[in-house]
Amino acid sequence: MLTEKKRVYRFGGKIADGDATMRELLGGKGANLAEMCKIGLPVPAGFTITTECCTEYYQLGGGFSEELKREVAEALAFTEKTMGKKFGDPNDPLLLSCRSGARSSMPGMMDTILNIGLCSATIPGMIKKTGNPRFVYDAYRRLIMMYSDVVMEKAEGIEPADGQGIRQQLDRMMEDLKKAKGYESDIDITAEELKTLSEQFKQKVKDVLGVDFPDSAEAQLWGSIGGVFKSWNGKRAIAYRRIEKIPDDWGTAVNVQSMVFGNMGESSATGVAFSRNPATGENKFYGEWLVNAQGEDVVAGIRTPNPLNEDTKTDQTRNLQSLEKAMPTVYAELDEIRLKLEDHFHDMQDIEFTIQEGKLWMLQCRVGKRTGIAALQMAMDMLGEGMIDERTAVMRVSPAQLDEILHPVLNPESEKKAGAIAHGLPASPGGAVGQIVFTPADAMAFAAQNKKTILIREETSPEDIEGMRASTGILTQRGGMTSHAALVARGWGKCCIVGCDGMHLDTAGKKVRFPGIDRVFTEGDYISLNGSKGIVYEGQIDTIDASENPLFVRFMNIVDKYRRLGIRTNADTPEDAVKALQFGAEGIGLFRIEHMFYGRNSDVPLMKLRKIILADNEEERKHALDELLPFMKASIKSTLKIMDGKPVTFRLLDPPLHEFVPKSEEKKEELARELGIKVSDIDLRSEQLHESNPMMGHRGVRLHVSFPAIAKTQYRAIFEAAAELLREGLNPQPEIMIPVTVSARELTFQRAICDLVKAEVAAAHYPIDIKYSFGTMIETPRAALTSDRMARSAEFFSFGTNDLTQMTFGFSRDDVGTFMGDYLGNKIIDSDPFQTIDTKGVGKLVEYSVQGGRCKRPELKCGICGEHGGDPESVKFFNKIGLDYVSCSPFRVPIARLSAAQAAIEQEI
Amino acid sequence: MLTEKKRVYRFGGKIADGDATMRELLGGKGANLAEMCKIGLPVPAGFTITTECCTEYYQLGGGFSEELKREVAEALAFTEKTMGKKFGDPNDPLLLSCRSGARSSMPGMMDTILNIGLCSATIPGMIKKTGNPRFVYDAYRRLIMMYSDVVMEKAEGIEPADGQGIRQQLDRMMEDLKKAKGYESDIDITAEELKTLSEQFKQKVKDVLGVDFPDSAEAQLWGSIGGVFKSWNGKRAIAYRRIEKIPDDWGTAVNVQSMVFGNMGESSATGVAFSRNPATGENKFYGEWLVNAQGEDVVAGIRTPNPLNEDTKTDQTRNLQSLEKAMPTVYAELDEIRLKLEDHFHDMQDIEFTIQEGKLWMLQCRVGKRTGIAALQMAMDMLGEGMIDERTAVMRVSPAQLDEILHPVLNPESEKKAGAIAHGLPASPGGAVGQIVFTPADAMAFAAQNKKTILIREETSPEDIEGMRASTGILTQRGGMTSHAALVARGWGKCCIVGCDGMHLDTAGKKVRFPGIDRVFTEGDYISLNGSKGIVYEGQIDTIDASENPLFVRFMNIVDKYRRLGIRTNADTPEDAVKALQFGAEGIGLFRIEHMFYGRNSDVPLMKLRKIILADNEEERKHALDELLPFMKASIKSTLKIMDGKPVTFRLLDPPLHEFVPKSEEKKEELARELGIKVSDIDLRSEQLHESNPMMGHRGVRLHVSFPAIAKTQYRAIFEAAAELLREGLNPQPEIMIPVTVSARELTFQRAICDLVKAEVAAAHYPIDIKYSFGTMIETPRAALTSDRMARSAEFFSFGTNDLTQMTFGFSRDDVGTFMGDYLGNKIIDSDPFQTIDTKGVGKLVEYSVQGGRCKRPELKCGICGEHGGDPESVKFFNKIGLDYVSCSPFRVPIARLSAAQAAIEQEI
Repeated sequence: MLTEKKRVYRFGGKIADGDATMRELLGGKGANLAEMCKIGLPVPAGFTITTECCTEYYQLGGGFSEELKREVAEALAFTEKTMGKKFGDPNDPLLLSCRSGARSSMPGMMDTILNIGLCSATIPGMIKKTGNPRFVYDAYRRLIMMYSDVVMEKAEGIEPADGQGIRQQLDRMMEDLKKAKGYESDIDITAEELKTLSEQFKQKVKDVLGVDFPDSAEAQLWGSIGGVFKSWNGKRAIAYRRIEKIPDDWGTAVNVQSMVFGNMGESSATGVAFSRNPATGENKFYGEWLVNAQGEDVVAGIRTPNPLNEDTKTDQTRNLQSLEKAMPTVYAELDEIRLKLEDHFHDMQDIEFTIQEGKLWMLQCRVGKRTGIAALQMAMDMLGEGMIDERTAVMRVSPAQLDEILHPVLNPESEKKAGAIAHGLPASPGGAVGQIVFTPADAMAFAAQNKKTILIREETSPEDIEGMRASTGILTQRGGMTSHAALVARGWGKCCIVGCDGMHLDTAGKKVRFPGIDRVFTEGDYISLNGSKGIVYEGQIDTIDASENPLFVRFMNIVDKYRRLGIRTNADTPEDAVKALQFGAEGIGLFRIEHMFYGRNSDVPLMKLRKIILADNEEERKHALDELLPFMKASIKSTLKIMDGKPVTFRLLDPPLHEFVPKSEEKKEELARELGIKVSDIDLRSEQLHESNPMMGHRGVRLHVSFPAIAKTQYRAIFEAAAELLREGLNPQPEIMIPVTVSARELTFQRAICDLVKAEVAAAHYPIDIKYSFGTMIETPRAALTSDRMARSAEFFSFGTNDLTQMTFGFSRDDVGTFMGDYLGNKIIDSDPFQTIDTKGVGKLVEYSVQGGRCKRPELKCGICGEHGGDPESVKFFNKIGLDYVSCSPFRVPIARLSAAQAAIEQEI
Repeated sequence: MLTEKKRVYRFGGKIADGDATMRELLGGKGANLAEMCKIGLPVPAGFTITTECCTEYYQLGGGFSEELKREVAEALAFTEKTMGKKFGDPNDPLLLSCRSGARSSMPGMMDTILNIGLCSATIPGMIKKTGNPRFVYDAYRRLIMMYSDVVMEKAEGIEPADGQGIRQQLDRMMEDLKKAKGYESDIDITAEELKTLSEQFKQKVKDVLGVDFPDSAEAQLWGSIGGVFKSWNGKRAIAYRRIEKIPDDWGTAVNVQSMVFGNMGESSATGVAFSRNPATGENKFYGEWLVNAQGEDVVAGIRTPNPLNEDTKTDQTRNLQSLEKAMPTVYAELDEIRLKLEDHFHDMQDIEFTIQEGKLWMLQCRVGKRTGIAALQMAMDMLGEGMIDERTAVMRVSPAQLDEILHPVLNPESEKKAGAIAHGLPASPGGAVGQIVFTPADAMAFAAQNKKTILIREETSPEDIEGMRASTGILTQRGGMTSHAALVARGWGKCCIVGCDGMHLDTAGKKVRFPGIDRVFTEGDYISLNGSKGIVYEGQIDTIDASENPLFVRFMNIVDKYRRLGIRTNADTPEDAVKALQFGAEGIGLFRIEHMFYGRNSDVPLMKLRKIILADNEEERKHALDELLPFMKASIKSTLKIMDGKPVTFRLLDPPLHEFVPKSEEKKEELARELGIKVSDIDLRSEQLHESNPMMGHRGVRLHVSFPAIAKTQYRAIFEAAAELLREGLNPQPEIMIPVTVSARELTFQRAICDLVKAEVAAAHYPIDIKYSFGTMIETPRAALTSDRMARSAEFFSFGTNDLTQMTFGFSRDDVGTFMGDYLGNKIIDSDPFQTIDTKGVGKLVEYSVQGGRCKRPELKCGICGEHGGDPESVKFFNKIGLDYVSCSPFRVPIARLSAAQAAIEQEI
């Protein structure tokens, strides 16, 4: 029970009991109202009842303590004195608003009751004072509508029997009246009609809810306060708290504030504004206003709002009057407030104001939301203006905003108008518009005619690579956030939606149906994808490209000053390496040797690899490996050359061999011809290689334990490439990484082979001395658990958090789509662990493993090369546990750089 | 360098410097020779050079220290004095043997050099003394053969150029001589011929090895000692140490001992004996001897040995003279020694003896190897005789020996004669003999005619269950130790070999070829399986059944006194439950609800389940679930009834649903008819359910998160069965186990549903109060890592170490066959982690998890229900880390009981 504590905080005039730091006690709105008063802004007087009173209210079984009553009375007296009016005064009544105020806004909480204090005792005086009966009765019917709805019905938890709440019933009564009278707008209803309607409203409220609408200012005020408290335990609010894990005992504050009216004639107005342009970031005062209107009219979009000033007029608003022109003195005052607010809060502010008969009142201020490009512009401008320091500038652009800047996106305005026809998982962000195709070959054929395509597949496989590259966007029916399509698309920064399982796909018939629309789409039809949200639209939606901003490089240079983590990239081709360098990568953290068997120019090496797989004996295998060597060396050498002086981590062949055996009859026949064997031999080998759970099968280092000759060829390719570059005067930094290890002895076994090959190559190139680093991918739980032993042979660990997540959860990333939705929906997991590292399980293993490894080898270099390397939340975690670097796809490099810097700044505080 | 330490330990007469406890210093053989002297047995005098001298030898670059030379000289003088002869004495020379003596015998180590001291200086005197030139020259040629082979060639590391070692060349010379002379046996060669041969031998040695055969007693002795030391670093010995992880610096001891001869005429003899019968355990002196022979003659099997005494004569040996009859005094002395040894060592002894001209000499004693049944018999007899206490009796029968007792096995004698035709993994022990069949249907057809069959499959699936049950043994081409076939067969105690991948199987053609034999086997052909070793034989091999021993129950009662771990069983049927109770199970640790959809009487419930899977909507699914309920309840109730008063852990449905959709066209058509749908609908659903990695897919609790109604039906079946039994006055103890969890929230989610159903059932049965325990299977690494949170809802953990091993290693048990051989072969892992728990990885997780869970809930019950519950090594580990129980298949229950008792006894010391 509260006894000593202050329950009510006053604000008004230049006085405030609270300030902006007191969000927990006063809620966000109340704290900011107090702060505005403190810095001398014109805020309608009022008071905030603390969040602690909400808890007290429940402890008292839904009642108010004497202390609260007393403090409210005192604060009300202060308010009356400040505003020069009395609440409930029959001659010149003060009217009040009442709003909830949780720490952050919460769906399901009571929003606002306006015009509290209008009742049979005060209406006549109010009419007399304003000389405007229509204004008064309109205010009164609004009060009845809001109060009956949120205080009498919702806060009491009454469920309307026929699904029609009191609000809907009153709305209908008003519509019926307008229809009967032939009125087009609310504005046409006369004062007399509003008076009669108010009486009918009160009767309806009694009929429906069984209680009278309160006809006393006092009763309305306490009813509203209680209503706010009750809404804290409304069904939707409780559900929301469960989901967001907000404790029940936080409670909500109540803000009681004097009413001011923007609808008291031509010298009254209302508006919202931003201290800078929230869409572009331009340092211009930007906003909208309406003369003779209430705040909700601006938001509701019934009337087109006017521009705030001349400078920000557009073609659409060219002919509308600006506040600057219409009320120059008020505008000047507002503009001064804008500067004062930015000067005070050091950030762009989103404000609400009302002008009552020529007097400006500030109703709200808060940090304004902004687009990615605006965030970047403002951060750099404010830094230039000396308003913020570099650390703050770095923190002002979120990784999601940076991502937005880096991808072309669908125009959000156009998206709003279009209806979604399907939803999937947002696998790779950005927007894409194109004609649908159903096969990689068609994608390439369309691309040859310069047509943009969206490739739709059940799921993609390595054989689809070229078609995927040729298409503008990718949409798959199956697969999760780390399915093949998602991984490849993110690597390229290409828009992609996966797991769109509502889709009915007929690949053979080149037809598809989407759940949200009743038509069949065929090849060539246009659709648009929002890869950031996983939404599919019909037709062509226009896109925005914001990546051209010259501030980007300057910003990223500042970012790099503050990060500790190194940033590398996952790149398998010279093109990817070049791209990643442009994006600021400091090395390659993952070069997958198998990549040379996919995609462009892979035909010849793939044929060699297939020979190796189909070899009948060691001799044949050896021969095929010798043939493969030059291809492998060329691919490795060109990448080492591009990354000269920077580390490049080569991962040995990882996938199970059956991935490389052709599946189609045509390809099999081609292979059989080439190798001079029978198709049935290929089928037999394919069957032998078949695995029930290939993810946990004969792959990674297991292949190289079974076939050391395959490992040898890879080592040789790396060392020969390095030796040749050294001869050319370059400085190659190869790192050799052994994948899917479970035991330190796999490493000693491989290291012996590796050192032998190195010695052979070194001898052939004498006196060239090849330096390299030997390490392992930690991607099985056992490798993580035995990291102390692993570190005896390994000079570096690179955590393969994709596979580590798969095995730690036992979640196959290819199959997780069937239940991930249920898991997220039932909040059994908070986020997809393939997107954001699961710190409690997988992260614990990573941390344990780093500690274990460094115990044995203090200089052990630790990084990660899973998809999590490009996820901001995950990067924070990796920074915290002391990794040396993260590696991500080229397009995610800037995001990783920013996340790393933000993590470092947050963690230094 | 050794300075203070004693290097040479003497033995002989009744004096010995060492004793049986000094194995590390003297090796096993030396320590036991000393001990025999100490207790007064007649041992030919000699001395042991310590293992430390071996290390010293290498430190000195292959030389002998002055201290060693001095101590050897002193010990030799002692030996000479004790035996009354002098080494190198031209008149009556003492001859010596020299043997290596590691802590335990090691392949590749030098074995024995006999007759050291024979040279041109001593041969004449020896001939004079023995009056037997043939004996002397025969001894001499043996010395040359052994010495040149092991000391001059092998220990020096000489690799014979043509692959023909000196030993083979000398052997051939002797063979040539015999051929030339027309002799049948070595015995026919005359003294003169042996003399000439010896000279030729020495010439050959010089020609081949380039050095003279040493012609001095002293040189021979030091050569032999050095040879023993050198053999410690021989290729095979080093390889063996690498594999067995024996440190290089252990070294080997050298035993130098006076020669005694069993081949000095009709009053000389040699033999081996066991203090009790090693095959049956019967307390009778058992052994074999040969008159006028050397030890190697008994072992080599050239002459048929005679029985030791009258009592142990068999039909085969009925007419051979016993030592008891031939030399009654010596026999009496030997019999006394036998009693003395058992009295001293408290265990059955395996001894070697030689009788030289009527005098008995003991050459070796050690604990004798024995069969399972003999181990049991001896342990119980010795306990009865008061020779050992109960703890010792429990330790005397190894789990492998108990396993042997519990399974019929192939007769080892017959196995020796038969040739293996294929090898696979020993999936389920015992022996099986039968006619081969290729389909489950054929197995059942043969069984109907009372024919025993071996079912051969590529791999088995749940649909094969009935055929598997009908067959005597199972042989599969694919799969590992925990594949379906292996698990099911072990559960039944049925002989099974899996992963026999050398086999060429043509199931459709009902033909198979085995790698070890050049013929095609067809249906009905006989083969025999040794499931304990994974060997396949052609034809019918006779079997032995040792399980009828009445001592078994008495022994197991003693065992149970000493164990701390509870032993439960994995059982899904009333029959299994009954069997497990008979074997001593204290509860069911794993009742798989899905079992009711496999095997006998599963047609109706399986059809209902398929309806559920194919249901189009919630309504249909609900209806099918209601139909399934009574079947489920009946199955659960009957098991709870049998296990009345004992806990029964019910695991919710675990496999992915696609396992239950029929694969064959016939079955699909049947299902389509039954459900009134199209086969294409089944195909479509089947395709939707397909998973790339089903092991990590939509299974376990994931199914029940997606389909809570399926969980509800299972909870209802369990609670209704329990309520009905309570009404019948019984005491059901159901435990509900949630499989494949990764998050504590899965448990809170399920527990809420479970408690709701319980409340409904309880209300319907008021005032019956149903008690149950709620827990989870810990089988994903994440569950183990978050066990503290898991223990908030879980009252028990049951570790599913099969899946936990799969996910910790990333080893799919269905696919592991492709590389497990390479991993074991290259010693990358020490043992198959699916057989014996991997303590460093998986075990660490289990231990961490138990500790985490008990931190939160100290009374948390922890058990395991993976296959490791029946593996002795694993049970030891589980005892050590404080689990409460292990659960294993019914046939493994006695083994688990014994292992648990042995673990407890070992760990209490």
